[in-house]
Amino acid sequence: MNRTIRLALLALLAGVAAARAEPLTIESQGSFFIGGKDVKSDALSTLPAYAPSGTITVGQMYVHYQIPVAPKGPPVTLIHGCCLTGKTWETTPDGRMGWDEFFVRAGFPTYVVDQVARGRSAIDPAPFNDVKTGKTPAADLPPIFSAGHEAAWAIFRFGPEYPKVFEGMQYPLQAQEEFWKQMVADWNATFAPPNPTVPALSQLAIKLGGTILISHSQSGIYPFQSAALTPQGIAGIVSIEPAACPTGDLKPYLKIPTLVLFGDYVDQSPRWAPRLKQCREYADAMKKLGGKTELIVLPEIGIKGNSHMLMQDRNSIELATWLVSWLNRNIEMKKP
Amino acid sequence: MNRTIRLALLALLAGVAAARAEPLTIESQGSFFIGGKDVKSDALSTLPAYAPSGTITVGQMYVHYQIPVAPKGPPVTLIHGCCLTGKTWETTPDGRMGWDEFFVRAGFPTYVVDQVARGRSAIDPAPFNDVKTGKTPAADLPPIFSAGHEAAWAIFRFGPEYPKVFEGMQYPLQAQEEFWKQMVADWNATFAPPNPTVPALSQLAIKLGGTILISHSQSGIYPFQSAALTPQGIAGIVSIEPAACPTGDLKPYLKIPTLVLFGDYVDQSPRWAPRLKQCREYADAMKKLGGKTELIVLPEIGIKGNSHMLMQDRNSIELATWLVSWLNRNIEMKKP
Repeated sequence: MNRTIRLALLALLAGVAAARAEPLTIESQGSFFIGGKDVKSDALSTLPAYAPSGTITVGQMYVHYQIPVAPKGPPVTLIHGCCLTGKTWETTPDGRMGWDEFFVRAGFPTYVVDQVARGRSAIDPAPFNDVKTGKTPAADLPPIFSAGHEAAWAIFRFGPEYPKVFEGMQYPLQAQEEFWKQMVADWNATFAPPNPTVPALSQLAIKLGGTILISHSQSGIYPFQSAALTPQGIAGIVSIEPAACPTGDLKPYLKIPTLVLFGDYVDQSPRWAPRLKQCREYADAMKKLGGKTELIVLPEIGIKGNSHMLMQDRNSIELATWLVSWLNRNIEMKKP
Repeated sequence: MNRTIRLALLALLAGVAAARAEPLTIESQGSFFIGGKDVKSDALSTLPAYAPSGTITVGQMYVHYQIPVAPKGPPVTLIHGCCLTGKTWETTPDGRMGWDEFFVRAGFPTYVVDQVARGRSAIDPAPFNDVKTGKTPAADLPPIFSAGHEAAWAIFRFGPEYPKVFEGMQYPLQAQEEFWKQMVADWNATFAPPNPTVPALSQLAIKLGGTILISHSQSGIYPFQSAALTPQGIAGIVSIEPAACPTGDLKPYLKIPTLVLFGDYVDQSPRWAPRLKQCREYADAMKKLGGKTELIVLPEIGIKGNSHMLMQDRNSIELATWLVSWLNRNIEMKKP
């Protein structure tokens, strides 16, 4: 009964938030880069108009931010997943408010990144030009890839296979084309682990003097890897449908309030069922060690129909409202 | 004298605007894509984890927007140049307010794009993977390029050659590293003209029911090319240091209020001097035809020291203030 009332209240709050929003007042907004290094190259260009030799800066991570007038909590940092960019967290495909704006309205300074070598974070063209000019063999081309709609359909759990739809699934499929436009080529397989976004997130967390890292899918493991580098600045971790949960030495994560969150239909997904199982093992191990870790599968608390892209599902604002409530219960809300 | 007083007033206004800004209230913000098409491919991936065959969507243009509470003019659309993204218009390398926010504060609904195949606008990985798998020869690789710092130095007119600096040059060189991080690889040479961003800008202009297209450098010519497709929705053109001005049939541009704007040191630049000369010929031809076209070289109206990246120069807010004043004098300010 208590849970029913709480869910009804959350739904009400979400309904209010999802209604045509009042004007938004922010203290400040802007963007900057974290990390990056200068690289000398003789393969910047194969065009006469641009010199092949010179120095470029790569490895930096683009960060956009908005600060509310009276912050109620530490900054949140939103980290997108595979084949996507920071756009993940902005306006949903069907035109509703994104989590980037919701968190600002909820009083959190909000930072949205483009992973290194994605979106507004530069890639290095030299390995491609070295092949074009015959300096290196074709097989040495970086293994970049895009996820096709058909394969992505099951990965994002819109249904068991393209184009079947799970019953009650909450993704706004009427605006599916707008989602496909969000997908970009992915450079991550060109990096040896840990992905360079991991130390960049560490640097960002330290710069901000504390932030809650909210990651998704491919980036799900990154906040843990950042915490293993240094716990400094990591006020909390929310790992949404991570591709993997930590194994091995769990000590670096013990003191960090952590939520691992999964949506619906996971058991029907050959891709995601084993990942949830592995995350359950991690969460159980953390519990035994006394860590502040919680794993929640949404249908188990009565929230049904969520796809892998739950920040864009029809109940995305309800979920964000629920998440803010979780943050309030589990993370120190005084401004650091 | 009149001009001196006007410039002093503008400097004062700019000083006020550049001071620590008051909180910003906006009616709404968000992002969406324009254009794009589905493409079937068998070369999406060379990795076992991702299927090579499938459909992806490419050719779309990412658009981010902010709408002020009480708009005073038509929307402005900010279009970046070569080797850059929409970041061009955001926070300057030395941390001052970007034109994206300035225009919102000045009352203009403001749209910032990432050109097609740049930033958050997807590229197609297939031509690279076709070479990697040996299906096509290495010479067929798309001619992508990055501009090295050394060559970019003269192109952006920080000085005559790297690392010499023009006397009185206003670019914030103390934050130069942050600018280098903005630069990304450029796919534009992979497209036959007109660049796909051109029809996307037309579609955006029509969708908005009127917008002032503000382009820069590589994209300088795009608004004219969009106008040649259809004048519909193009309320004005501000072409900042365009790589080229229109030639041939000038009729499509006659009724569109147009400003072509150049900074300082142009005559000392072998790259830019001929471009300015060609734009002067275009502006003279437009004048003879009775077109609403003005070409302004900033030092000729007393504003000195501007580089090619004038929207990031130390006097960027003074320039934006001047530009708003030009828009007010030359473009219908009633909301369309």
